[in-house]
Amino acid sequence: MTKRKFNFFPGPATLPLPALEKARDEFLDFEGTGMSVLEISHRSKPWQKVMDDADALVREVMGVPSDYKVMWLGGGASSQFYMVPANLQVPGKPMEYVNTGGWSTKAIKEVELYGETKVIASSKEENFSYIPADVEFSEGAAYAHITSNNTLYGTEWNYEPKVPSDVPLVCDMSSDIMARKANVKDHGVIYAGAQKNLGPAGVTLVIVREDLIDRVPENMPTMQKWSTHVAKGSMFNTPPVFPIYMCKLGLEHLKEMGGVKAMEKLNREKAKILYDVIDSSDGFYKGHARVDSRSLMNVTFTMETPELENKCVDEAIPLDLIGLKGHRSVGGMRASIYNAMPIEGVKKLAKYLTEFKEKNQ
Amino acid sequence: MTKRKFNFFPGPATLPLPALEKARDEFLDFEGTGMSVLEISHRSKPWQKVMDDADALVREVMGVPSDYKVMWLGGGASSQFYMVPANLQVPGKPMEYVNTGGWSTKAIKEVELYGETKVIASSKEENFSYIPADVEFSEGAAYAHITSNNTLYGTEWNYEPKVPSDVPLVCDMSSDIMARKANVKDHGVIYAGAQKNLGPAGVTLVIVREDLIDRVPENMPTMQKWSTHVAKGSMFNTPPVFPIYMCKLGLEHLKEMGGVKAMEKLNREKAKILYDVIDSSDGFYKGHARVDSRSLMNVTFTMETPELENKCVDEAIPLDLIGLKGHRSVGGMRASIYNAMPIEGVKKLAKYLTEFKEKNQ
Repeated sequence: MTKRKFNFFPGPATLPLPALEKARDEFLDFEGTGMSVLEISHRSKPWQKVMDDADALVREVMGVPSDYKVMWLGGGASSQFYMVPANLQVPGKPMEYVNTGGWSTKAIKEVELYGETKVIASSKEENFSYIPADVEFSEGAAYAHITSNNTLYGTEWNYEPKVPSDVPLVCDMSSDIMARKANVKDHGVIYAGAQKNLGPAGVTLVIVREDLIDRVPENMPTMQKWSTHVAKGSMFNTPPVFPIYMCKLGLEHLKEMGGVKAMEKLNREKAKILYDVIDSSDGFYKGHARVDSRSLMNVTFTMETPELENKCVDEAIPLDLIGLKGHRSVGGMRASIYNAMPIEGVKKLAKYLTEFKEKNQ
Repeated sequence: MTKRKFNFFPGPATLPLPALEKARDEFLDFEGTGMSVLEISHRSKPWQKVMDDADALVREVMGVPSDYKVMWLGGGASSQFYMVPANLQVPGKPMEYVNTGGWSTKAIKEVELYGETKVIASSKEENFSYIPADVEFSEGAAYAHITSNNTLYGTEWNYEPKVPSDVPLVCDMSSDIMARKANVKDHGVIYAGAQKNLGPAGVTLVIVREDLIDRVPENMPTMQKWSTHVAKGSMFNTPPVFPIYMCKLGLEHLKEMGGVKAMEKLNREKAKILYDVIDSSDGFYKGHARVDSRSLMNVTFTMETPELENKCVDEAIPLDLIGLKGHRSVGGMRASIYNAMPIEGVKKLAKYLTEFKEKNQ
């Protein structure tokens, strides 16, 4: 077998090795059934147990209160961009968004079909290099929407916006769910595509407060109603079984590692290692995100010239440091250091960047 | 390892063993990348090759003409139930359906939100035990929709309905795609959830004739437009990578087995073995489907009493014959014998049913 690489891809992203190993070991024979987990009926007891375990693990790890429902849906977080307004629209009430990057922009684009949309704050004019300060959503909004972490730009909300008590806060947590403590009870809806911090691509976790489930208008396609999926325990139709199963294995690993609290401590340590390299580089590496808005998950930075940046990306590859090219909207480099990235990978990258600077400055 | 079972589940269903073994063997290291196929970026070259190969294999195996596009989408065939009318509606033109079972019924339910719906034929009054004869769709319909195989009832279209040349025929082939020759050029759209005859749950194959892609109204959410996904090669958003990868491995295996032609021959042989047991049982086993409408994929039958049926299902389990309980809408037993079910499994089941009859009649 080839040596395992340190994979800094932004998503699909690195997964915990013990979860991968368990999946491989039981790939042809899931818990003595004589079948692969891919092959068992979603109406069978062994599969129902996977669903129940996944639900319980999300609740335990995130501290989800009992009046919230947990769903596993296909179609990606991009489908939630329209399902949020489809399910939460209230005639006459505006839907309020903060625009902090590419994903927020895509989410906002879908809302106008469902009613009035207000972008109450944005950092677009400075290429989304910061999270707007002192954000306060309006009384009378249908809901308030934020994107907690911005993968492309490497920014993350480091404070809670002000939201009137009767306005549900909706958060796209695709790229930092379970990376740090989130107060679920302060949210109406949390959703997250799995492929960054939770598991592989193909499933989206949606957590909804019970009173919001039946807000959806009658004349909405069955599959687009959260209420459909809640009523059937995410199995109104055949769920994306393997992605859910992998999320369950990942959650078990997260729990073993000490849960979100331990993970947040480790993530802060990991991010600090890289930001310290940037900050002590005398401008050789330029962080894209403003210091107060820095992401724990995606460390974005540029260098003097694109040639130097490409050289830095390319020379990392033979050292097994993969996926460091930045997104075209920022350029430069990006190190995605989700929960599953071991601190050894981060240390190796920091050492490489320090040496690269010495050689090339 | 436990002995591999013969798995007659209707979906998720048995998969080709060589495909499962290959996936397991490279699970931690995909083609020397040092990463799992679950972990590589969907923008990376190794992943693009998987997508390209899957596209080419579908085209080769099914004989897809060059003016058709192939998509791999999340959200299940149940999402296509609304995406079909969302994308193909024409103001003032009715959307015509034939109702041949539970899935057709669910598909029809979603259409009314988009315009006038006409059910031009149905076998509901006889518990969907047959495919209506001489079906002829109307001039001036927006499109014509059929469900080629009916998993719950064990019926399958054994003739082509008459469709006016300017009316696109839309076919839900979820449970018999690639089980027998389909003339793609006679269709406007073919769609199929993967988890019965194509791969694991979590992805839906959609094949659309080019001229139909841009029929969709402007005011439709981005993710609901086929045009969005066609324009980006099914990667507008992160695709369900593992389900697509497993489909690709399954398609490679299908090609090695001789393609759809060889598979159809084998499927006819497999189905005949079981229908012969039913027909020669002097009424001990009663086939649900009318003889002219019998499915090659799902063999449904009942017995004198539910007690006897349960006994027959239960006593099969220790013989490694799994998943034979019928759907509640028919009761009795159902043997799902998709492409990946080896003929040895069918022969073993036939032998068991013959012996069970001898002991219990």
